[in-house]
Amino acid sequence: MSENALIRWLRERIQSRAVVGPGDDAAVLAVGGDAVVTADAFLEGVHFSPDDAPDRIGHKVIAASISDIAAMGCHPRHSFVTAGLDTRRGDTFVRELAEAMIAAAETYGAPIAGGDVTSWAAPLAVSVTVVGETRGLRPVLRSGAKPGDRLFVTGALGGSSLGRHLDAEPRVREGLHLNAEIGVSAMIDLSDGLSTDLHHLAEESGVGAVLREAAVPVSDDARRLAERDGVPAVRHALDDGEDFELLFTVPADRAARLADAWPFGVPVTEIGTVGGADVVLERADGSREPLPPHGYEHRWT
Amino acid sequence: MSENALIRWLRERIQSRAVVGPGDDAAVLAVGGDAVVTADAFLEGVHFSPDDAPDRIGHKVIAASISDIAAMGCHPRHSFVTAGLDTRRGDTFVRELAEAMIAAAETYGAPIAGGDVTSWAAPLAVSVTVVGETRGLRPVLRSGAKPGDRLFVTGALGGSSLGRHLDAEPRVREGLHLNAEIGVSAMIDLSDGLSTDLHHLAEESGVGAVLREAAVPVSDDARRLAERDGVPAVRHALDDGEDFELLFTVPADRAARLADAWPFGVPVTEIGTVGGADVVLERADGSREPLPPHGYEHRWT
Repeated sequence: MSENALIRWLRERIQSRAVVGPGDDAAVLAVGGDAVVTADAFLEGVHFSPDDAPDRIGHKVIAASISDIAAMGCHPRHSFVTAGLDTRRGDTFVRELAEAMIAAAETYGAPIAGGDVTSWAAPLAVSVTVVGETRGLRPVLRSGAKPGDRLFVTGALGGSSLGRHLDAEPRVREGLHLNAEIGVSAMIDLSDGLSTDLHHLAEESGVGAVLREAAVPVSDDARRLAERDGVPAVRHALDDGEDFELLFTVPADRAARLADAWPFGVPVTEIGTVGGADVVLERADGSREPLPPHGYEHRWT
Repeated sequence: MSENALIRWLRERIQSRAVVGPGDDAAVLAVGGDAVVTADAFLEGVHFSPDDAPDRIGHKVIAASISDIAAMGCHPRHSFVTAGLDTRRGDTFVRELAEAMIAAAETYGAPIAGGDVTSWAAPLAVSVTVVGETRGLRPVLRSGAKPGDRLFVTGALGGSSLGRHLDAEPRVREGLHLNAEIGVSAMIDLSDGLSTDLHHLAEESGVGAVLREAAVPVSDDARRLAERDGVPAVRHALDDGEDFELLFTVPADRAARLADAWPFGVPVTEIGTVGGADVVLERADGSREPLPPHGYEHRWT
């Protein structure tokens, strides 16, 4: 299949909500309020494996990108995808990859509005840009946490490398609820790992935090991985990353309201308090130690 | 240098015009009118060579992307860059690449507002998204050409593979002038080559066109390439691509005004007429033949 044939095939399947969708030099989007924009790269061998099924890769790249808009407490609206397709892959791989992207983008409210298809004799490289809208909401930044705020997280953490990182569910409705109904003070999505992302949030807010180890929701995957590698399951929950859950802070007087009226299936858990100069981990026995950011970081020479 | 160190280094250098710039889950942009968005992939060995200097690669990926906003006759405002950096390249390469992107994005009015830096042991893959604004203008689409309209092109075409494709100058002011002051009916930027891009414009508009071969502005690069490979220089001008000039159509009664009051250094040339059922090439002797889209297309298995 030529690139032109692929592009024609894609254009038949894409139901964009853009004013001008795929097929021109650029898409034209009516934006309600400010635009909220995130751009992420996904590389074979880094963010997914060469052996992963194309439909799961396609789902992940969209879900992980939309998760960034969810973490702003805003409305995802449009997705743009560019791909460097590996010429050594067949048509079936590419179609399944594309179908999964289209489906995930529609599921989470940000249908594909444009992009670019190119190919090379190298591993698959995908980039996703998601354009969201504020529609009267104030975006929730990483920098709004105040001493005394309570620290919460959605879902259960750790062990996503067993496969859950491919099946990420961006917490779009949860993020909107937290922003519009609760009034959270700061929010970030967990991509690098709780310990690292908590540092990001604390650093941007200019605060410290106390994380209560016993309160951290540990996933079944983290327990399975702990059985295999002997690392405590809670360490997996703290450091593994790619959970794509929401970590956020709430003024103390709204924390009860949050827990009492939580209308979603995914659990929400209070895991600590904002305050102090550093990010520390409080053990079950009350002892405290520094919590270094042990999560995801690439290095290059 | 770690990715985190690179990201810190980048954040110090980037002067975003976003409401919320790099450093949060997403950027927040105030948009004047509708948003005009383009996303493009640039792959080593396809869109640039492994031997090209990093500053020219960095310039090209931004300039070529902003060219798409210019072709809509709209205002480029923000750039987003994701990169899969080759771990086998050194710090100097990456810094020069990044500096050139930052400089080009500022030069053409769309400072970098966010992105993503990742790395792998594979060739360099870059993706650029540019967000523009209509600010009261109607975007110029490919689909607005009408029979009787005159066909124009900026610049001189062909032979960009000799190096000019890396030094592209997006025709931002020219595109805005054509949209706001002249009222062009359709526009596209020349990335795939005049013959192919004219087909794109004609197909989207549901029209044919007559291109006068003798009127096509042939670049010095096209002539140099012709001396080397024996292909007529005008064929290079018709088919080579990556000129990043503007191809556009104007109602006949505005064509004289366009040529009489053209305030830019780059030339503008009338090269044909919209009409008929097909895209045809008119030779100097008045004979006509079909003009097939001989430009750029990748194929994959």
